[in-house]
Amino acid sequence: MPDRVYLDWNATTPLHPEARQAMAAAWEVAGNPSSVHAEGRQARRLIEDARAAISAAVGARPQDVVFTSGGTEANALALTPGLRRGAGEPVRRLLVSAIEHTSVLSGGRFSPDAIGTIRVTGSGLIDTDHLRRLVAVGPPALVSVMLANNETGALQPVGEVADIVHEAGGLLHVDAIQALGKIPFDIKSMKADLVTLSAHKIGGPKGVGALVLAAEMLGLEPLLRGGGQELGRRAGTENVAGIAAFGAAVRAAMGALDGDTARLRGLRDRLEAGLKQTPGVIVFSEDVPRLPNTTLFTVPGLRAETAVIGFDLGGIAVSSGSACSSGKVQPSHVLEAMGYGKELAQGAVRLSLGWSTSEADIDLALQAWRKLADALLRGRRNTA
Amino acid sequence: MPDRVYLDWNATTPLHPEARQAMAAAWEVAGNPSSVHAEGRQARRLIEDARAAISAAVGARPQDVVFTSGGTEANALALTPGLRRGAGEPVRRLLVSAIEHTSVLSGGRFSPDAIGTIRVTGSGLIDTDHLRRLVAVGPPALVSVMLANNETGALQPVGEVADIVHEAGGLLHVDAIQALGKIPFDIKSMKADLVTLSAHKIGGPKGVGALVLAAEMLGLEPLLRGGGQELGRRAGTENVAGIAAFGAAVRAAMGALDGDTARLRGLRDRLEAGLKQTPGVIVFSEDVPRLPNTTLFTVPGLRAETAVIGFDLGGIAVSSGSACSSGKVQPSHVLEAMGYGKELAQGAVRLSLGWSTSEADIDLALQAWRKLADALLRGRRNTA
Repeated sequence: MPDRVYLDWNATTPLHPEARQAMAAAWEVAGNPSSVHAEGRQARRLIEDARAAISAAVGARPQDVVFTSGGTEANALALTPGLRRGAGEPVRRLLVSAIEHTSVLSGGRFSPDAIGTIRVTGSGLIDTDHLRRLVAVGPPALVSVMLANNETGALQPVGEVADIVHEAGGLLHVDAIQALGKIPFDIKSMKADLVTLSAHKIGGPKGVGALVLAAEMLGLEPLLRGGGQELGRRAGTENVAGIAAFGAAVRAAMGALDGDTARLRGLRDRLEAGLKQTPGVIVFSEDVPRLPNTTLFTVPGLRAETAVIGFDLGGIAVSSGSACSSGKVQPSHVLEAMGYGKELAQGAVRLSLGWSTSEADIDLALQAWRKLADALLRGRRNTA
Repeated sequence: MPDRVYLDWNATTPLHPEARQAMAAAWEVAGNPSSVHAEGRQARRLIEDARAAISAAVGARPQDVVFTSGGTEANALALTPGLRRGAGEPVRRLLVSAIEHTSVLSGGRFSPDAIGTIRVTGSGLIDTDHLRRLVAVGPPALVSVMLANNETGALQPVGEVADIVHEAGGLLHVDAIQALGKIPFDIKSMKADLVTLSAHKIGGPKGVGALVLAAEMLGLEPLLRGGGQELGRRAGTENVAGIAAFGAAVRAAMGALDGDTARLRGLRDRLEAGLKQTPGVIVFSEDVPRLPNTTLFTVPGLRAETAVIGFDLGGIAVSSGSACSSGKVQPSHVLEAMGYGKELAQGAVRLSLGWSTSEADIDLALQAWRKLADALLRGRRNTA
């Protein structure tokens, strides 16, 4: 596809060259990591090298990283009744913020009547007063709050959330999928008990993720049982090449973090300044800390479906909110939770940037948007 | 590793050149298959092409193939209370043969008190009389019987099993992981209701599998929830490159099936004839139909752990029964179920062959074995 501009990095990133190299090298290793022969031990080393890279990136111990088939599985594994810290009381209910990913909203292995929802503000931040009220009454809760929202990019106050949750005797799960490689963070300074990561948001392959545990976390009931892989916490032959590539992608992303942040923020600001030349453009969560690479916007009357197709025909790949469903454009549950009506929640378009995004890409996207906006405004006049 | 001979194909195969090519091509596709833009649609096509290849290989409809992160996840997904065929009664208990893979023995989502075990004969075939007695009493059962055992290679009488199960109002799950690409089979002629497949046993990558359903199967409760992928039966961004490579590996394996079978059987027979020159060698399941590529053998007094290391030092990668645990050598549950004592069940060594196995490989393996056997027999005399 010549002259395409890819601005959908929050849905999935292109494979990073370092990840590509690691995957190709892993192909040469025939062994099963559970086998004791030389080929097996070689495969095992690839996995443990990746585990070291990932644990180092988030300040955890290697033995506390559990590789999974992606963020959805890691979230499902995390949301487990009975989790506890050391001799602490096990969690018996789940509280999720209203803007979590659908894999968290589905509640893992908690029964529906043991799941509560934490409200968010109009800016897309978790309502900590509401959280305080929810944790105050009832048994110990596992609370799940993402670090960065995948649609708006809004950064949640997880440190404050952790204090509220721990004071009430609960545990905190942080879905950090969208934040990894975009902002620095650490499981200890976040005071999180469980953290979810995914490879394909940072240049690793699709189909690999990890659940990272704080030291002293107990009671993690495996979701996949049988073999003793991942210290008995996740059975099944490991995705060796994918895991090796995840490790390489994390190393590359952490190395580039400082430089990329300022550059992407500059490009994003240029993008938003351009979009706002269209009268009525709303940039969601603009007034709160956000990821440096993400813009979620709309203009009254815009239909996201039309806009995404319009951008696509103009050579620009963008998204209508979350892409993790089945390609259907539905009102964004994130924007609805922020208090926007169906009209606006159905019209939001997300542009997300990554390491190869250039100034020229932004200018081409703005050019495509102006054409679309013109047509839209003409349409408005026609139907007026 | 120069001059290594890899004879552990039942644990995992080297990546097939066709799979390698498909994976490399998939790397160039940046999009998320759930995204509606061109890059997303391109990723979607890779998945649907693979689905077509896999459904064709086992005689199912494309929409009845559910991609998973491997055989363990596919087995966990399959073993679901409430499964039913059309308007039939849902299954409420599980019967597994004693020689199933640990991921099946763990029982999926059936509670331990709803799981029964079907005995096997001394030759390693399911005891159909015992099955008949088990299904006759109690609610409708899901019965899980593998097509080919991963340790002995014994081919189970799944057609007969299916008739027994269906007559009693139950459903049949067939773990066909070890059989795929080694013998021809078909979901319809096996009369199976669910079939598990895995990529890495046939030259695809590790970390990809599929559950294939018979038409009219209902009640499959997803294990991973959230996004609408796989028609709502398995949430999570798909392992696009892995799935594409799985499709390519299946096409290659099906194309080579006829030619490989006779060649591998010839090599395996040469291997077994050579092994049997050592007095007392037992080849398990020798008297029943087996996979053409698998030999599980022992000699009284052999310790599998020592043998595997001895072979490894001699440049030959072999396995001690199943490798799907954590590298620990324990008595084979398959051989114990066949009635062998701990002594012999702890001493079994598996040699499994694949497309690149040559006559020279077999001769090198036999050379290594003779050295080992000599040392073993010397050891016997010393301790006598």
